[in-house]
This record gives sequence, C-alpha cells and structure tokens, in this order.
Amino acid sequence: MDSNKTYLSKAITLIESTLASHQQPAQELIMRCLPFSGKSIRIGISGSPGVGKSTFIESFGKFLFGKNYKIAVLAIDPSSNRSKGSILGDKTRMEELSSLQNVFIRPSPSSGTLGGVARKTREAIILCEAAGFDLIIVETVGVGQSETAVHSLVDFFLLLLLPGAGDELQGIKRGIMEMADAILINKADGENIAKAQIALAEIRNALHFFRLKDSEWSPVAELCSAKDSTGIPEIWDVVCRYIDQSKSTGYFEKRRIEQYMQTLYKSIEEALMTNFLHSPGISDGLNQMEARIKAGEISSYQAANELLKLYSK
Amino acid sequence: MDSNKTYLSKAITLIESTLASHQQPAQELIMRCLPFSGKSIRIGISGSPGVGKSTFIESFGKFLFGKNYKIAVLAIDPSSNRSKGSILGDKTRMEELSSLQNVFIRPSPSSGTLGGVARKTREAIILCEAAGFDLIIVETVGVGQSETAVHSLVDFFLLLLLPGAGDELQGIKRGIMEMADAILINKADGENIAKAQIALAEIRNALHFFRLKDSEWSPVAELCSAKDSTGIPEIWDVVCRYIDQSKSTGYFEKRRIEQYMQTLYKSIEEALMTNFLHSPGISDGLNQMEARIKAGEISSYQAANELLKLYSK
Repeated sequence: MDSNKTYLSKAITLIESTLASHQQPAQELIMRCLPFSGKSIRIGISGSPGVGKSTFIESFGKFLFGKNYKIAVLAIDPSSNRSKGSILGDKTRMEELSSLQNVFIRPSPSSGTLGGVARKTREAIILCEAAGFDLIIVETVGVGQSETAVHSLVDFFLLLLLPGAGDELQGIKRGIMEMADAILINKADGENIAKAQIALAEIRNALHFFRLKDSEWSPVAELCSAKDSTGIPEIWDVVCRYIDQSKSTGYFEKRRIEQYMQTLYKSIEEALMTNFLHSPGISDGLNQMEARIKAGEISSYQAANELLKLYSK
Repeated sequence: MDSNKTYLSKAITLIESTLASHQQPAQELIMRCLPFSGKSIRIGISGSPGVGKSTFIESFGKFLFGKNYKIAVLAIDPSSNRSKGSILGDKTRMEELSSLQNVFIRPSPSSGTLGGVARKTREAIILCEAAGFDLIIVETVGVGQSETAVHSLVDFFLLLLLPGAGDELQGIKRGIMEMADAILINKADGENIAKAQIALAEIRNALHFFRLKDSEWSPVAELCSAKDSTGIPEIWDVVCRYIDQSKSTGYFEKRRIEQYMQTLYKSIEEALMTNFLHSPGISDGLNQMEARIKAGEISSYQAANELLKLYSK
C-alpha cells in the first residue's frame, strides 16, 4: 500500500499540474480510474480555525484505522499556500496519523480559485478511491464558500464547533449549520464540559429548525474531545447510521448522481459565462451598464439584453 | 390617483403581455418610468398557506394608509392561475384594503416560470413607483424558490408564522428563516396567546443563530394578530428602524445596487444557458453524458468539455 501512496501522490501532482502537456495524460488517468472509484464513504469536515479539526481528524482517523479502513485525507482551502503552511500543509499536525500505513494525507492544492481547487479535489477523490482508499475525509476551514464546495463532494458533512456555541455560532457563515448532517462540539473536556453541555442543548434546539427536506435524516449534535479521544466511536456510529439509512432509502446513490449532474451543469455555466466575460467589448460594456443601472437609466434586464446583443455580434 | 390606478393596471398588463408586438412598447414604458422609480420602501411578505398573509396585509395596509402611504400590493406565485384564484387573485380577501384610494392590489402574473414572474414583478414595481406608490408590498407563498425571488426584489423581508412554531417551522423551506429581517407570529390571539409566547421564545432563540453578515441588522421576532390588528404598529416601527439604520449605514442603497447587478448577471447566465440547451444535439448529448456519468465512464468535467466542444461547433 505504501508504494501505492507514492504512486497516488505522483498521480495527484499530475492532475494538479497546470502544464498544458499534463492535461491530456491527467484526463486519461482519471478516465482509467473512474471505474474503480465511488466505493468509498466520503466525509466532509469543517469548522472555524482553532476548533481542532486536525486533532479531531487525527483521533477519528486512528479510530477508523483500527477498524481497518484505508483513509485518505484531502483538504479544500483556496486561500492555502504551502510555503505559509496551509491546512494539512503542516504535516506535523497529524504526525501519528500520517505515519500509519493505509493512511494518505494530502494538503490542499497550493493555489487556484475555489472552483479549481474543488475540481482538483473531486479528481483526487477518484484517484484515492481507485488506489483502494475506502474512507475519504475532505477537510475545509469555515471561510468563504468552501463548505458549499465540500458539501457537493461528500456523502456526510460534519461541522465542528467549540463550547459556548451561542457566541461561536455567530462567527459561522449563515447556511453552514443547515448543511451539517452532524454537529460535534469539540473540546468538551476539563473545565469546558459544563459550557459544552449548554452549547449542546442550544444547538439541538436550533437543529430542530433545520429539517432536511430531501434526505429523511435529522441532523445530530454530540459532544467530543479530540484531545481525549472521547465521543469518537459515537460520531462514527452516527455516520454509519446515516450511510445505512441513506443507502436503504436510495438517497445515497441519488445524492451522488445529483452532485455529479450539478457539477456538470455548473461547469458548463461557468465556461459559458467565462467565455462571455472574455469576449471583446464585454468588460467595458459591463462597466457602462453598471453605471447606467446605478443612474437609474436602464433596468437590469435591458442591460442584459444590450450586452447579449453585443456578445452575439 | 384612481385614474392612475387604471393606467397602472393597463401598463402592467402591457409588460405582462407575451405578445411580440408588446415587447418594444413595454420596454420603452419601463425606460420612461425608471427615472421616477426607486423612491419607495419595498417589503416582502411570506408565509405558508393559512398563516393569514391576506388578513395581515389588509390590517398592515390599512394602518399604513392611515399614515398616508400610497400602497401597492404585488404577488409572486409561479404556480398561480387566475381562473383557479391565485394569491391575491381573490380580491374579496382584501376587500376593504382594495377599496381604498391610493391602494393598488395586483394579482400575480397568471403564468410563467418563477424567473419570468419575478421579472414581471420587478418591472411592475418600477411602474408602481413611477405612478407615485411609495410603499410596495410583495407577497409570496412559502413554496419553492419564490421567497428567494422576493428577497431579491425587496428592502425588507417579513416572514409570518403560526403559534406552535417548532412544529410549524419544520414545514418551512430551509434558509427562509435566514432571509427574514423580521418574523411575526400571527394569530397570537384568544387561546393561541400562550402557544404564541412559547413559539416567540423558541424563534428568538433560533434567530440568535442567524446573524446577518452583510447588514448589521439582527432579525427581530414579534407577535401579532392580524384579525385583532394587534402588533401592527410595532412591526411598522421595526421596518422603520431597519430602513433608518440601513440608510444611515449606506446598506440600503448598496443592497439595491447588488440586487440589480445580481439580476443583470443572472439574466445573462440564464440566457447563455438557455441558448446552450437549445443548440442542436445538446439535449441528446446531455442524456448520453448523464448515462455515462451514472455508469462511471466519464467525470462531470469531462462530460462538460465534450458538450462544450459540441456546442462550439
């Protein structure tokens, strides 16, 4: 397996490459790997900086290693920069886990737009699965739109919070709690336990207001201490319950197909828009239209028509 | 003003018309009206069927009429169909209000996509403002994406709920509470009052988790009884406080420009995508790609590239 890890690293480096000459072989590689992909459980993990994501992934990963899972940890962090030590970039943060056989840890691509990073990560998942990894963890920091990107890549979305959630949560982007299939209050240890209990009650009450419409899963909130490795088996039970339920209802497969089709449509939409924005005269036209809209001279729809006329020329 | 109402009705009928020969004059009319538009306060009102939207708008409208506002009530309901009596279609539901001078009530366009209905409504707002209406109410039912459409049209978004919110709320589409600038628990009268008090506490606690990031407004929850006209002046005070605050921070103007620019980009994106989807071979190609994606033969990105190649031919 360790030799696999070396090949896998090289393969991911190939698909991350921006060299024109690498694109064709990269796409061929993905094509070859696709038939062997899709068999893993994909878990997204998010939380604000300082919530203890790495420590949690270390404990969670070691627990799953004990259950003979082959674990790959990937990261989405468009702001990352290896030289500055991105999330997962600083390997020492997951020293023990990364030293384990059958565990593969890969930092976020060091640059690129969120869309680009998400794409590379989606392709990396395919490669990891083809290489035999059956549990993929995608980590992201609670910034920008990165959770939405991760949510579109995974089967189960886990949000980590700190005790004192009421206050903490206000720092959390709106809509993230709604994406979570489970919320874990980390650092529920020592003096924090009382605060954590209160936070748990608050969050369970708030979750009451977030019923998923599409899956029949009601989001779960639990306590854990990544440091003391408490609450780890419990959260794994939650994940298993979710996977079993969503597979039995057919939602698991349905959701993945939806993710793929959404990605298809989104990629097309982005390509069409990029092509539009880079067409001659459009950027000047947009500036003019923006000015005219602000001046109340033209409606958004009229401005759109003007620009589309210009484009079709 | 009543003669205005007749002209206004005719003008809105013109912009709602799908006749090719009406498009040019309709757009000219909007151009002419634009310089006189934008001076009103635009309030969106949403809530599940049975929550008492019409009764609330009747009480709220009569209260504002007493404050010498000229009120126009529009509706967004893509599912509506006049013959079946759409929201606001059944005028008797707002008999008193609609009989008042300086009050204009217009049902939702009787057909069309949500995007189309939203567009017609946005254009109707321009005409109403140009006709001198200085308080625009846009009503929608809590179904599908219509709240998002209304939210993109208004300055202030008001969500109506019923007592027993915990249960009620689960019927509400995720994300709607997050759009609300204020939540009103209606029918807080008679035997309902105790239940309404509990619901109010629950909702206030939940709102604690929805801090708007862009405006500095914290959503407010109050009780009201549209039937007994209690809580009406209080909610108007909330609206005024919001408007004053957002105008003083500059958010009011900023938000409107953002709405216009988002509409501009969205219209362009939709036009590009529609054009793409109607190009020769694309719909067949999409079906093939979907099958190949499901079969795990091709990635979403590769499928997108194939289709874009086909399109550019």
